Amino acid sequence: MKFEAELSSLPAQTKLMPFECKKYLLQQCAVVEHALTRYMLSEEGPLASHIKAMRYSLFAGGKRIRPILALAAAEALHAPTADLLPIACALECIHTYSLIHDDLPAMDDDDLRRGKPTCHVVFGEAEAILAGDGLLSFAFELLSHPDAQQGISPIAQLQMINIIAQAIGPVGMVGGQSLDLAAEGQSISFEHLRLIHGYKTGALITASVQAGAIFGKADAKQFTALSHYGMQIGLAFQIVDDLLDVEGTTENLGKTAGADAQRNKATYPAFFGVAKTKIMAQEAVEKAVTALEIFDAQAEPLRALARYIYTRNN
Amino acid sequence: MKFEAELSSLPAQTKLMPFECKKYLLQQCAVVEHALTRYMLSEEGPLASHIKAMRYSLFAGGKRIRPILALAAAEALHAPTADLLPIACALECIHTYSLIHDDLPAMDDDDLRRGKPTCHVVFGEAEAILAGDGLLSFAFELLSHPDAQQGISPIAQLQMINIIAQAIGPVGMVGGQSLDLAAEGQSISFEHLRLIHGYKTGALITASVQAGAIFGKADAKQFTALSHYGMQIGLAFQIVDDLLDVEGTTENLGKTAGADAQRNKATYPAFFGVAKTKIMAQEAVEKAVTALEIFDAQAEPLRALARYIYTRNN
Repeated sequence: MKFEAELSSLPAQTKLMPFECKKYLLQQCAVVEHALTRYMLSEEGPLASHIKAMRYSLFAGGKRIRPILALAAAEALHAPTADLLPIACALECIHTYSLIHDDLPAMDDDDLRRGKPTCHVVFGEAEAILAGDGLLSFAFELLSHPDAQQGISPIAQLQMINIIAQAIGPVGMVGGQSLDLAAEGQSISFEHLRLIHGYKTGALITASVQAGAIFGKADAKQFTALSHYGMQIGLAFQIVDDLLDVEGTTENLGKTAGADAQRNKATYPAFFGVAKTKIMAQEAVEKAVTALEIFDAQAEPLRALARYIYTRNN
Repeated sequence: MKFEAELSSLPAQTKLMPFECKKYLLQQCAVVEHALTRYMLSEEGPLASHIKAMRYSLFAGGKRIRPILALAAAEALHAPTADLLPIACALECIHTYSLIHDDLPAMDDDDLRRGKPTCHVVFGEAEAILAGDGLLSFAFELLSHPDAQQGISPIAQLQMINIIAQAIGPVGMVGGQSLDLAAEGQSISFEHLRLIHGYKTGALITASVQAGAIFGKADAKQFTALSHYGMQIGLAFQIVDDLLDVEGTTENLGKTAGADAQRNKATYPAFFGVAKTKIMAQEAVEKAVTALEIFDAQAEPLRALARYIYTRNN
């Protein structure tokens, strides 16, 4: 799927040279990858097979959007980001755990993720559940790791842990997945769809940006602006996800295309059609960028990321 | 199962009047229950059915051993324990999540827990996985809750979160469950069985005691002593669990008796026979009590708990 033509209608402020954005993403992805390699347990000793299952999904070629968002939010606040890496890695562990559990036979029953067989296909259902559980617990080990205590006050770090835990819990990501499963094959309102999306996808994306904001010692105004940015790109991310399920190919996506329709899931395109849905994604990106008005050029990566979320094709 | 006769051989120091111990347990159980009721989300709004599944397992009549251990450890250090309650509740949420996931069809496939149908029997497999995920995330919300920041320095609280996260993660409880599943039907060494038990059961019990120790501002010597106590009662707890599976009834246990033998699981009785296993449990309790020598009468509940773990019948 390409939105190139439509991009010209985005506000000038959102425009970065495509090369710069791509370069930034690649650079930051490599930084996160390196940190994940450093922090993640190695496949040694009696627990090797458990750790292997976690590593399989963690190093399956994710885009590392959530950690990159956290780093970019701190960057927008002129904070050096090296000490934020354990937190960034924790966000990716949480995201990976959620994918492993969502793909389980009892849940969405997906065989393909990031272009590879899903964790339960390779390691069996029991180990996939445990790999997810292990990654979630390990995320909180990282969030409270001595390395994560650099460049941030202990009180701020506790606040960050609390925000992340809330975002992924019963009134957050997990609750969203529960609502999503319950809604399958049901006729739901658009308001209910927004609620599901907000919990299931928006909450962790917003919390990732907020984690960077807290690390960067955002004042109340900056924190509110970054939170608003996070909510809008979370929304854009989910709308594009719905679009990709319609317009993408299984090869491009690395996961089964058309799965939403097959499961009779409520989506933005099902409610509004593809054309209007694209406009809605664009509007969310514009709102996200507008929320960054109070920031200087250091927020350019955040602006570029908003645009990337709109143009991504997997 | 009754060990009354054998109790007479326990060192005098471990003896409390049975009534006192029972009374203490009932009192503390009520305190924890009240705090859980206060902190746990209520079944309201769009997420009601997800929260219902979590509450179903959380309020299914658990013994609250881990929270009570945390409170008793703080008590041994003369610390007022009211502010430790959010942490104590978090430990119970973690324990409940681990039971829900262990009982899943893909894992131990148990239909009965605490005398009631297991979470997946009542709410289905998908919701049971999510109820576990929700409780685990919620536990970290409690661990970093503003209420949990009373009576403890932020640095000590981060250390506590880190210890708990490590204890329940890949090199802890989750890793132990993975090893346990892999060992089913296999011929394993006694050393391997100890390793599994240490990770699967011992780690969280030890971490619960350590959480109380940190809250109570234990010095290095006290922390080591309490950790040693935790490891020994963790061991005793697991040995007694193995014994109960052989000698208990499904009615008493509230879960299927004889399940270990049915699954061809390595257990202490399978290695050593019932008589020697009982002596080993007793030895672990004695070691636990000996570890408390440096503490005064305020550690009496911890000593009583060690004895209770040996005499419990469910």
